Amino acid sequence: MTARPMRFGLIGTGRIGQVHAAGIAADPDTTLAWVCDPIVDGARTVAARYGGTVSDTAEELIASGEVDAVLVASPTPTHVDLIERAVDAGIPVLCEKPIDLDIARVEALRPKIAASGVPVALGFNRRFDAGFASARARVAAGEIGELEQLAIISRDPAPPPASYIGASGGIFRDMTIHDFDMARFFLPDIVEVSAVGTAAFDVGAREHGDFDTAVAVLRAATGAIVTITNSRHSAVGYDQRIEAFGAGGMLQVANAPSSLVSLSTAEAVEARPPYQEFFVERYAGAYRAELSEFVRLVRGETSTSPTFEDGRAALILADAAQRSATEHVAVQVDLD
Amino acid sequence: MTARPMRFGLIGTGRIGQVHAAGIAADPDTTLAWVCDPIVDGARTVAARYGGTVSDTAEELIASGEVDAVLVASPTPTHVDLIERAVDAGIPVLCEKPIDLDIARVEALRPKIAASGVPVALGFNRRFDAGFASARARVAAGEIGELEQLAIISRDPAPPPASYIGASGGIFRDMTIHDFDMARFFLPDIVEVSAVGTAAFDVGAREHGDFDTAVAVLRAATGAIVTITNSRHSAVGYDQRIEAFGAGGMLQVANAPSSLVSLSTAEAVEARPPYQEFFVERYAGAYRAELSEFVRLVRGETSTSPTFEDGRAALILADAAQRSATEHVAVQVDLD
Amino acid sequence: MTARPMRFGLIGTGRIGQVHAAGIAADPDTTLAWVCDPIVDGARTVAARYGGTVSDTAEELIASGEVDAVLVASPTPTHVDLIERAVDAGIPVLCEKPIDLDIARVEALRPKIAASGVPVALGFNRRFDAGFASARARVAAGEIGELEQLAIISRDPAPPPASYIGASGGIFRDMTIHDFDMARFFLPDIVEVSAVGTAAFDVGAREHGDFDTAVAVLRAATGAIVTITNSRHSAVGYDQRIEAFGAGGMLQVANAPSSLVSLSTAEAVEARPPYQEFFVERYAGAYRAELSEFVRLVRGETSTSPTFEDGRAALILADAAQRSATEHVAVQVDLD
Amino acid sequence: MTARPMRFGLIGTGRIGQVHAAGIAADPDTTLAWVCDPIVDGARTVAARYGGTVSDTAEELIASGEVDAVLVASPTPTHVDLIERAVDAGIPVLCEKPIDLDIARVEALRPKIAASGVPVALGFNRRFDAGFASARARVAAGEIGELEQLAIISRDPAPPPASYIGASGGIFRDMTIHDFDMARFFLPDIVEVSAVGTAAFDVGAREHGDFDTAVAVLRAATGAIVTITNSRHSAVGYDQRIEAFGAGGMLQVANAPSSLVSLSTAEAVEARPPYQEFFVERYAGAYRAELSEFVRLVRGETSTSPTFEDGRAALILADAAQRSATEHVAVQVDLD
Repeated sequence: MTARPMRFGLIGTGRIGQVHAAGIAADPDTTLAWVCDPIVDGARTVAARYGGTVSDTAEELIASGEVDAVLVASPTPTHVDLIERAVDAGIPVLCEKPIDLDIARVEALRPKIAASGVPVALGFNRRFDAGFASARARVAAGEIGELEQLAIISRDPAPPPASYIGASGGIFRDMTIHDFDMARFFLPDIVEVSAVGTAAFDVGAREHGDFDTAVAVLRAATGAIVTITNSRHSAVGYDQRIEAFGAGGMLQVANAPSSLVSLSTAEAVEARPPYQEFFVERYAGAYRAELSEFVRLVRGETSTSPTFEDGRAALILADAAQRSATEHVAVQVDLD
Repeated sequence: MTARPMRFGLIGTGRIGQVHAAGIAADPDTTLAWVCDPIVDGARTVAARYGGTVSDTAEELIASGEVDAVLVASPTPTHVDLIERAVDAGIPVLCEKPIDLDIARVEALRPKIAASGVPVALGFNRRFDAGFASARARVAAGEIGELEQLAIISRDPAPPPASYIGASGGIFRDMTIHDFDMARFFLPDIVEVSAVGTAAFDVGAREHGDFDTAVAVLRAATGAIVTITNSRHSAVGYDQRIEAFGAGGMLQVANAPSSLVSLSTAEAVEARPPYQEFFVERYAGAYRAELSEFVRLVRGETSTSPTFEDGRAALILADAAQRSATEHVAVQVDLD
Repeated sequence: MTARPMRFGLIGTGRIGQVHAAGIAADPDTTLAWVCDPIVDGARTVAARYGGTVSDTAEELIASGEVDAVLVASPTPTHVDLIERAVDAGIPVLCEKPIDLDIARVEALRPKIAASGVPVALGFNRRFDAGFASARARVAAGEIGELEQLAIISRDPAPPPASYIGASGGIFRDMTIHDFDMARFFLPDIVEVSAVGTAAFDVGAREHGDFDTAVAVLRAATGAIVTITNSRHSAVGYDQRIEAFGAGGMLQVANAPSSLVSLSTAEAVEARPPYQEFFVERYAGAYRAELSEFVRLVRGETSTSPTFEDGRAALILADAAQRSATEHVAVQVDLD
Repeated sequence: MTARPMRFGLIGTGRIGQVHAAGIAADPDTTLAWVCDPIVDGARTVAARYGGTVSDTAEELIASGEVDAVLVASPTPTHVDLIERAVDAGIPVLCEKPIDLDIARVEALRPKIAASGVPVALGFNRRFDAGFASARARVAAGEIGELEQLAIISRDPAPPPASYIGASGGIFRDMTIHDFDMARFFLPDIVEVSAVGTAAFDVGAREHGDFDTAVAVLRAATGAIVTITNSRHSAVGYDQRIEAFGAGGMLQVANAPSSLVSLSTAEAVEARPPYQEFFVERYAGAYRAELSEFVRLVRGETSTSPTFEDGRAALILADAAQRSATEHVAVQVDLD
C-alpha cells in the first residue's frame, strides 16, 4: 500500500463495467485514470462518480501513457482486438469473460500473448469467492481425501432479454463458461464433455435455438466427474452452490443468505428470506479480491489470477458442450 | 431376552396409560398381565388390544400374585397410595410424574421406600430421549469442557382444558417438573430457584391463578446456571430443545423434524413443515428406552432409571419455583 | 384390519428377505405363512423368529395353497421363473428389483403378466419413503410450478464384495435402477439417457469392468432434465437426497439425521453425527408402507405399488445408461 | 447526499473510537473534522488515516466552531461532562453506552437534555443490526402474533483484562446494558428485573466481585417475559442471537456465519467454521446504519436513533439486575 496506486483504464461502462469502476475507486491500491465507452455518456457518468479522464475510443485510452493496466468490460466481440492492442502497447489487461465466441480467433491471438510476456488475466471472478476458494483450498489440503465428484449448481435469477440471448453465443459460452472455469479451478485437466440442454421456459432461448436449462457432465484426467447444472431462472434468488465429494467426505458451499432471520409458524418452520439476488451482491467480495490479485499479477508478484489460457480452456469446453448437446455424443477435448 | 417376559400390572388407562400399554405389549421383554381402571371400560379396551386381566381396583391387581411390576399411570392424587401398596406387597413400581402435589405426603412416604429395598422408578421419560441422553453423555465426556449454562426450552402445543389446570397443581408441578428433572439430569445438585410466570393467553390459567408462560432460573452447586423456558402453547409444534454451554463450546439438541422435505420459493427458502406434534410422537423412543431400563432395574441389573428420590427433588424445585414466582424472591433449596 | 391377515410366502432369506420377514410379522394385516430358501437353515432361522412353515423349494411354497401372496427376495436370476410360477398359480407377487439383468427375458414374460390379471409389484421401496413421496406429491400439487430439473443423489456407504459386483449386472442395473425408478416416479416418460462412469476406488469394480462412480442424465418427454449421481461409497453415511427444481422454486429432501444433537466448538460449529447408515435404517418406514400398499393391491383396492411395467422401464433405462457410458453417446429410449 | 457532509468531532480514539472514525470517513454524508484524545498520539494516528484536526482536549474540539456533531467514545466517567458541554454548545451528540455508571449523575443531567432540544443519541448499535431490526419489524407487523417471550443470547468471545473489569461497573452495566436496550427495542416498558450471576471462569470477575456468567429475566408491562443470557467468553465465536416467541410462532436471528462452507466426514457432518469473531465484524453494518440514522436525527428528519432516555432506562435496568443478583429478590422498576 506504500506504492503509488495502480492507474486503470476502464473500457466499457455497462453493468459489469460499473461494478469494476466502483471496485477500482474503492481499493486504495488502484485508481480510475481513464474511462472509455463509444457511448460517451456512459463513460462520463462513471467518471463523474469515480474519477478518470473520459474518452470515446479505446485507442486514445491505451495511447494516453496514463494507464498502468486496462480493464476490458466492453461487448465480447471487441475483446480480442482490445487485448491485442493493450498487449502491443505493453499494458497488462484484465478482460471480462469470454475472450471471444470464436475459438479460432482466440487460437490466433494465443501465440502473441504467450510471447509478449504482458500479463493478461480473465475475469473469472468466482475463483475469488471466499466460499469457493476455501472449498478448493480444503480439497487441496486433503480434508475430503481424493476428489471424486464435483457438483456445480449455477442458476441466474431471470433470463436476459431475447436480444442478449441472440448475441450471447448460447448458454454454454455465455453462462456455463463460468462453471467450466470453476470445474477447472478444482480439476484443471478436463478430457471429456457431455451436455444436455432444453428450452423449458424462455422465449428468447426458443427464438434463438438456445437452451435455458442445461446439464454438462465433465470427466477429468484424474477420473473425477464434474456435474454442472444451469438454469436461466431461479425463483429463490441467485443459486450458486458447489459440492465437492471425495473418498473421505464432502465440502459444500451453500447459497448466500440475505438475512439471519428465520420464521417458524404453524405453516412452516425455519423459513428464511430468498437468497441474495444476483452477482453484484453475491460476488461483491470476489470482485474486490479479483482486483487485488490482478494488481499482484501486474506487479510481478505471486498471483493466482486466471489467465488467457484459462479463458481459452473454458471456451473449448463450452464449444464441446454445445456440440455434445446438439449431436448427442460425448465430446473428447484436449486443453493443451 | 431368554428370561420369561416381565409381567406388568398397569394402573390407569388414560392417554399416558395407553402409551405404556402399547409399549409393554411391543417389548419382547415385557407382557401386559393385568390392567386396572375404576372406569373399567377403559381397562377393557386396553386389555382387548394388548392383553391382560381386567380389574376395576388396584388392590385386586396387586394382590393377584400375577404381576412382577406395577406401572402407575392413574391420576396424581392416587400415586402415593399406590406406590405404598405395591411396595408393601414387594412389587417394583414405575410411577408417572409427579409423585404427588404435596411434598409433605412425599416426605412421609420417603423413609418406607428407602427402607423397603423395593425398586421405585419415576416416569421422567425425557432422560431416555436419544438426543438429550447423548448431549448429557457428551457433556460428561468433556466435549464442551466445564458446563456453565444449560438452557431448556419446553413448550406444549396447546393448553389443556381449564378443568385439568385446576387440578394440576400449577404449571411448575405439572409441566416444568419434567424440566426440573432434566436440569438435574445434567446438574443433580440445584441450590437456588428463581421463577417468573404470567398468564398470557390461557383462560384456564387465569381462572385458576396459574401461569401459562414461565421462566425458571436454577443455580447449581457447581455454579452453573440453568434457564428453563415454558409455554402452554406453541404454534410450531412441540418445542423441546436443550442447549448446553461450556467453556469449550456448545451442544445443542434441536426440535425433531416431522419431514426431511424443505420448500424454497420466491417468498421464503428452506421452509420445513412444523415440528413433531406432541410427546407421543417425539418421545416414542424414550418411552421404549424408559421401559427397558426399568426392566433392568427390577432385574437388579445396572440401571439409570430415575428414582423416587428424583421425583421428590423435582417436586421440591417445583414448590420453590411456585413460591419464587409468587413472592418475587429467589428461593434456596436443599435436595438432600 | 377386520380382514384375516394376508398370508405371505417369503422366497429368499438373505439380508433383504430378513427385512421383509420382520415387516410381514410386524404388520397386523399380514402374517408369514411359508418361508423358503434352498439354504434351508436360513429359512429355519427366519421361521423361528417370525413364524411360517419352512421349505427348501419355491414349488412347495407356491403349491401349498396356504399363501395369499408371494414375496420374492431370492437372487436376481431366479426372479423371472418365480414370478411366472406364482402368476401361473394365480398368486400375487411382490418381487425385489431388478426383474432380471436380461431385458429379453423380461420382455418375454411381459405379455403373460399383462394377460394374467394377477398383481405383480416391484420392490422399488423408495417410492414409499415419506420424504420422497411428500416431495413428489407437492410437485404434483404445483408448489414449485412446472418441474424443470430433478437431481437424485444416491450413494451407498461402502462397496459390496468383488464377487457381488461380478454378478450384479453393473452399477446401473444393480444400484442406479432404484434411481431410474425414482426419476420415473416424478417423470414417468423418459426419452433419452446419457451416462458417464468411472472406477475411482473400488477394486471389485475395476476387476469386473464396472463403475463405482457414475452420473446419468435423463431427458423426460416434458423437457425436464434428471441428473442422477451415484457412488459405491460415502464416508458421511447413506447419502440419499432429491432436489426438484421448478419454475417457482425448489423442493429438497435432505439426508436423514442420526441424531438431533449438534456440537459447536472453537474448531467447528453445528457439527452433527454422520447420517443414518444404510437402507435398513433409512428406509424402515418405506418398507412398511410398501408392504401396506401391496396388500391394498392384492385386495383390489386403489394402490400405488410400482408394477412389472415399472420394473421393465427401469431396466431399459439401466441398459441405455450402460450403453451410453460405454459408447459415449446419448441413447434414445422408448418405454412403451 | 446533496447536502454538505456533516462534520464530526470524535472524542476518544480507543478501539470503539477507531471503529467510528472509519465509519465517519467511509460515509459520503459525514466527514471527520476534529479528533481529540488526551493521549494525543492516538488522535494523531486516527487523523492520519481518516483526516481531521488533532487536539488533546475536548474543550478545544467543542469550541472550534468546526464540528456539526460530536461523537463521544471516551471512557465512561467522562460521558456526562462531555454530553453536557456539547449540549451547552448546542452541538448534537452521539455517545457510546453507558451514559454513566452512576444513575444519580444521569438523573441530574436529564432535565437539561430534555429542555435543551439538542439531539443526544446513545450508541446502542445493535438496534441497527439488519437481523435484529428485521425481527423487530416483523414482530411489529404481526408475523408471530402477540409477543410472549423474548430470548436474547449475548456472549463475548473472551473476557476483558481484569483491570477493565474493575472499572466497568460490573457485567450488567458494562455488557448486559446492550441486551437491556435490545429488550426495550422490542418491549419498551419493563416493570421487573430478576437476575442471577456467577463467576465461573474469569479471574478478573472473581477479583472484583463481578460475574462472568449471568441470566436476567425481565417482565414487560404487556406481560411478556424476556430472558437475557450472558457470558464473558464463547469458544464458538461471538454468540449473538435473538428468539422472539409469539402466539403464532417464532422469529429467530441466528449467529452470523464466517463462511458458506461446511464439511462432512465420517466423524461429523455439516460442520461449519466458528461464527464471526466479535462486534467489529458482526456489527459492521449496524455501525454504518447507526451513523446514518444519527445524521438524520441531527438534520431534524424522522429518526429511530436511541436517545438519552433509552440510555437512562438501560442503566436503571442494569442497576436493578445488579441489586437482584446480589440480594436474591426480584426488583420492580419504573422507567418513566
